[in-house]
Amino acid sequence: LTFQLTILGSNSAIPAHGRNHTSQILIINNEHFLIDCGEGTQLQITKYKCRLGRINHILISHLHGDHYLGLVGLISSMHLQGRKKPLTIYGPPGLAEIITLQLKYSQTVLNYPIEFKELQEDDPVIFQNFNMEITAFPVNHRIPCFGFLFKEKVKPRKIIKEKLPDWATSKDFNDLKAGKDIISPKGKVISFKTLTLPPKKSRSYAYCSDTRFMPELKTVVKKADLLYHEATFLHENIQWAETTFHSTTIEAATLAKEAKVGKLIIGHFSARYKDLSPFLVEVKSIFPNSELAIEGNHYEVSE
Amino acid sequence: LTFQLTILGSNSAIPAHGRNHTSQILIINNEHFLIDCGEGTQLQITKYKCRLGRINHILISHLHGDHYLGLVGLISSMHLQGRKKPLTIYGPPGLAEIITLQLKYSQTVLNYPIEFKELQEDDPVIFQNFNMEITAFPVNHRIPCFGFLFKEKVKPRKIIKEKLPDWATSKDFNDLKAGKDIISPKGKVISFKTLTLPPKKSRSYAYCSDTRFMPELKTVVKKADLLYHEATFLHENIQWAETTFHSTTIEAATLAKEAKVGKLIIGHFSARYKDLSPFLVEVKSIFPNSELAIEGNHYEVSE
Repeated sequence: LTFQLTILGSNSAIPAHGRNHTSQILIINNEHFLIDCGEGTQLQITKYKCRLGRINHILISHLHGDHYLGLVGLISSMHLQGRKKPLTIYGPPGLAEIITLQLKYSQTVLNYPIEFKELQEDDPVIFQNFNMEITAFPVNHRIPCFGFLFKEKVKPRKIIKEKLPDWATSKDFNDLKAGKDIISPKGKVISFKTLTLPPKKSRSYAYCSDTRFMPELKTVVKKADLLYHEATFLHENIQWAETTFHSTTIEAATLAKEAKVGKLIIGHFSARYKDLSPFLVEVKSIFPNSELAIEGNHYEVSE
Repeated sequence: LTFQLTILGSNSAIPAHGRNHTSQILIINNEHFLIDCGEGTQLQITKYKCRLGRINHILISHLHGDHYLGLVGLISSMHLQGRKKPLTIYGPPGLAEIITLQLKYSQTVLNYPIEFKELQEDDPVIFQNFNMEITAFPVNHRIPCFGFLFKEKVKPRKIIKEKLPDWATSKDFNDLKAGKDIISPKGKVISFKTLTLPPKKSRSYAYCSDTRFMPELKTVVKKADLLYHEATFLHENIQWAETTFHSTTIEAATLAKEAKVGKLIIGHFSARYKDLSPFLVEVKSIFPNSELAIEGNHYEVSE
């Protein structure tokens, strides 16, 4: 099953050097999530041949323009494309008010319903379906801002078909997949461990942008297969990161290392840097399995 | 002196086929006016090497997203670039409320002042300086919408230096330029017509988007050197133009012809058309001096 992240934008505050504002699409098993939606996101979606109509959930981390100004245009384009199915938008307090005001003045009555879900610090699980859930967690920025953790639920154990007894019922089958022992018609308990293999791993993706370095996040993003963490500045400019509530390369890589994640992707680069190669050198010095968020690139997590 | 229009975006509702949402820059004698500001305008400004810092006046025709959604991002980038000088924004009622709400939630305190000027149907002159003025006029769209006419004031007459009498004072000089007769020390009235040539023409540019065809606009845009008029649809699709309050090629060209303008530029093309060449064929059949609004193109009016 698919678990794929696509980068649509990787630059911070001012778009520059061909880099657009933050946006990403995460696909988990056919469910498409749009994470942040900077200005021009709908153009990037077209450019990289993503499918607007497949997106049913949009998550906005915070209300700085470079993370949400593309949202009204996107909502409008969905409307003009004839969308009927509901759209759910998760964002900090204020987002619904902003969108509603803009739709009011354009006298737009959408032909599909939008449900706004306001992110709260004490309500971590914001979405779940049969095979995954999303939690939101506060990060440390100048205004209220949230990170997101996407995690597959525990998967069914794999039945070793050649060992399955003839008398096993469909209930036995489901019990074994769920890791429960079964009982034979003669009353003998048979351990699920002898008839099944461990489940495939439950994959996870953590998104942390924008934030000051938070070492305590290592428990939240622990062992995520994929961690996106902002690295707005090179480490020599740590004073700028401190004053603007952003992170540096070394800080992002340190979190990745301490949380023992699988792969680190850094992004949200400041417009002051044209050449990003020093970013990669710095993060790899701490956490070798790191990559730059490059627009149009896909990052897959295999099962 | 410069009188130059640059197209930054030419598509309607949904950006498509590499065409962006509406925005233009008009430069008249070093004053830079941004006309409409669809999503992604700041990227287009960078792409076409226009200078963000030179823009002191932004005019928004109406509050459909494809004409103003790039405004908050642009305001924010001006702030981040260290702008100090004031910015004046002209737009329909509601624009100030939308922008102010977004700045509130991003907790942005701009380091330069913005003055919002609300467009009203009965207050046509919205800006003037020593050499030009702008009037706003209502057009016929689904929501309140304005066109703009930029017009140079009458220019000074050109003095024929070799005919100027030795006794002429600086006051005489100014009177002649203003088209007034002067009096010699001996009391003789000398006609300004004998000492001056007619002034250079006063150039004008009219912007009409978005609107249903309004034949009565011909008096408003009469003899404009340059007329931009929306032509969202080919004429065979006039029923779509009628229901969505837009215009067709033939309608735009008819207005240009009846108003005896110098040149017609059409834009605001529907995303349903990839190939624009039929647009040009249709407008030229009525008004030969027509061009398509092509992004990055400059249209100059000579003196």
